[in-house]
Amino acid sequence: MSILIKHADFVVQSADSVKPGWDVLIEGNRIAAVGPDLTAEGADVIDAAGKVVIPGLMNAHTHLYQTLLRGVRDDVSLVDWCEHVLFPAADVIHQNHWKQGDETLGYCWSALGVLEMIKGGTTCCANMDMTMDSVYEAWADIGFRGVATVTLVDQWLPGRLRRDPDLLRAETLGYVERWHLSPAHNGRIQVALAPSTPFLASEDLILWAHRQCTDLGLDLHMHVAETEYEVASVQDSTGLTPVQFLDSLGVINDHFIAVHCVHVTDEDIETLKIRGAIVVHNPKSNMKIGSGIAPIARLLAEGVDVALATDGSSSNDLLDMFEEMRAAALLQSVAAKDPSVISATDVFRMATETGAKACGIDAGTIQPGRLADLAIVNLQKPHLEPIHDVLSTLVYCAKAADVETTIIDGRVVMDDRELTTVDEREILRLAQELGPGLYERSLHSTLHPEKGKGLNE
Amino acid sequence: MSILIKHADFVVQSADSVKPGWDVLIEGNRIAAVGPDLTAEGADVIDAAGKVVIPGLMNAHTHLYQTLLRGVRDDVSLVDWCEHVLFPAADVIHQNHWKQGDETLGYCWSALGVLEMIKGGTTCCANMDMTMDSVYEAWADIGFRGVATVTLVDQWLPGRLRRDPDLLRAETLGYVERWHLSPAHNGRIQVALAPSTPFLASEDLILWAHRQCTDLGLDLHMHVAETEYEVASVQDSTGLTPVQFLDSLGVINDHFIAVHCVHVTDEDIETLKIRGAIVVHNPKSNMKIGSGIAPIARLLAEGVDVALATDGSSSNDLLDMFEEMRAAALLQSVAAKDPSVISATDVFRMATETGAKACGIDAGTIQPGRLADLAIVNLQKPHLEPIHDVLSTLVYCAKAADVETTIIDGRVVMDDRELTTVDEREILRLAQELGPGLYERSLHSTLHPEKGKGLNE
Repeated sequence: MSILIKHADFVVQSADSVKPGWDVLIEGNRIAAVGPDLTAEGADVIDAAGKVVIPGLMNAHTHLYQTLLRGVRDDVSLVDWCEHVLFPAADVIHQNHWKQGDETLGYCWSALGVLEMIKGGTTCCANMDMTMDSVYEAWADIGFRGVATVTLVDQWLPGRLRRDPDLLRAETLGYVERWHLSPAHNGRIQVALAPSTPFLASEDLILWAHRQCTDLGLDLHMHVAETEYEVASVQDSTGLTPVQFLDSLGVINDHFIAVHCVHVTDEDIETLKIRGAIVVHNPKSNMKIGSGIAPIARLLAEGVDVALATDGSSSNDLLDMFEEMRAAALLQSVAAKDPSVISATDVFRMATETGAKACGIDAGTIQPGRLADLAIVNLQKPHLEPIHDVLSTLVYCAKAADVETTIIDGRVVMDDRELTTVDEREILRLAQELGPGLYERSLHSTLHPEKGKGLNE
Repeated sequence: MSILIKHADFVVQSADSVKPGWDVLIEGNRIAAVGPDLTAEGADVIDAAGKVVIPGLMNAHTHLYQTLLRGVRDDVSLVDWCEHVLFPAADVIHQNHWKQGDETLGYCWSALGVLEMIKGGTTCCANMDMTMDSVYEAWADIGFRGVATVTLVDQWLPGRLRRDPDLLRAETLGYVERWHLSPAHNGRIQVALAPSTPFLASEDLILWAHRQCTDLGLDLHMHVAETEYEVASVQDSTGLTPVQFLDSLGVINDHFIAVHCVHVTDEDIETLKIRGAIVVHNPKSNMKIGSGIAPIARLLAEGVDVALATDGSSSNDLLDMFEEMRAAALLQSVAAKDPSVISATDVFRMATETGAKACGIDAGTIQPGRLADLAIVNLQKPHLEPIHDVLSTLVYCAKAADVETTIIDGRVVMDDRELTTVDEREILRLAQELGPGLYERSLHSTLHPEKGKGLNE
């Protein structure tokens, strides 16, 4: 099975290589050739005149369960949101999932988020979710690629939501076996482990996760230095910053994905650099919940790898990597009061090449041998013309709705803005049915602070 | 001619009034009725099931000539951009316009920007432009509503770009006569005067503009306290802040539109409040060129009217009021490290009701008697579902591309995302032809710092 993309106005091979008028040949699930005037007998031809071909965008951190909680409480901090929205909703979800075995909810929130991402040219995400198989069955059905980032928490949250430690560990290894080590789905679905934050996961759990990652070759994802609350809480209990605490445990290495890093010291930045960790920046989320401004321009200048992500729908509320690229560039410029501290090239690299590195996949650039994960963007729009520099156009002007075609693993999963693999209307219908019900029921959970004991349960 | 919008999931009458299941009846260019189960014999019926009807968004400050310069130099401050991009381009435009009488360029940049705005549900803008009639002929042809904000400058910029003072004043009054006082176009095109900034317009010119505004009933728009450069320059020459300087001239009143107000003191805020001035916030522009963060939450808390705007395409680069609403909310939340300082309601009001006030038009809410300027947004999208609070959905999730129908002055100017009044392809073709040429030629202007003398010409 071959696909030949012809006559593109531009092929953006990477942030550093834009080729006007080139073609792209896909064979199987890999890019076979990139260049001018390619031919391939029997290939499906996609005419890309007036369009630009880009690497699929990589959303290096999200929480898909939040798609169903989108727009519930815009005005609260992270900790308040956990108490008022997350815990009561998790209570409802857990009751459904573990007591009744109904996994429709997970399938629905996952499919809804993946639909949105594919329609915006995002071909891969790392999803730190309330893990259940149905979340990843949706990915398998739709043909999405991503990292099932298994959330590990054993403290701070209400007792009723805490799992038995042995069961949690056994279940985690079950996910690794069923998804990561499975030959099904062509390796599209991998697993990483995520002791959520230094205050939600005990030292024991973090160390256990680190050992599993080392043994099994998995990445370790953690929220690190996201909020002042987290920094103070780690400081209180250890006398260290979150980065220094985690480094003292020996878990920061080049398979450590440090999500957020809003509140990091010079010493923290030096540690992240020396250990080769990858930082994941979530500018819109950091803005919306008032976490602060991560020193991304500084991290980039120091040579630290920084990927880009949307975070979950509760703190964004979109899973739109085009808006996220703009937000990243704009936020660094205003923080420094200097527009030269970050460029369209920097931001595009964060959303593609470095994102692929953070997700541990062989994609993120359009080069022979790489996985065929890419998007075709229509440039014939009033907000995209005229084009003086197509990379600038992509970062500052292009929108999710300009993406016409999305290809993942060599397969066209969206054609002319319609998903080819699932019935979009059915997923929307399900979301409209389940979303409001989930929230309604969460208000009656005894974990809701206005109803019961909240964190003190 | 009547239009009946039926079965909307929601009618957002204003930021404070959302009505599920209501209908909207338009007669002529005004809203005739809003309520449940409306009927109107002979009316054109628009089925709005699965959709939300909102007041047209008001872009209270832009510079349409910049649409053709979109993406030229992302990495420079305002002053550097003036020297490297604006002045050389203005030199080319002026040569075309005044020496050869070719106004195609103005028609093109204006039509391109208006196309983008209408496709994003924006029904009105205030355009501080290089004024030429063709800019507004495009509005007349397309059926757009707006304020032709005549730019007045007589100092700081290169000598070659300065007009003879008497000619400038005579021309300005000509625009007022031809557009503002003309019965043509149903009053859709009004005029305001804009001594650009305190450092680009002399005291004499500002006072002259103020007198004309008072005599003719026009609004006075000015960039105020946008950059630290401006504040320092006014401080150097007058010993006052920009707001205090303008107030000492007596020009700040309830017809004074203060664009930006990034760097304002407590005393400035008090002055703006007492005088009843309207502030226009341009969050993405302030971020992109690193101007700083305007104290919008503070201004709102003090009861100052704040409208919202995109600024020009060179510093944004979009004319997208949905993205602008999000940016406004997010930027205030991160600046205060507190998500409760600004709400979706605040931001929606800025983009509609207060925007209409800043543009001096009788629109901005969907109420009987008001001008029929509105947009219909399709909610059946994965990034908009489920809906817990439709105002939150509109501010944090909805996108320009979700707008299906735009109505201005009681006329459907966009139907199912296609403009009804002009050939979009022809405008795009023209922009693709003229935009790169304009920039190319500007590089050869002797006003370009690398070519000639720049500001010292």
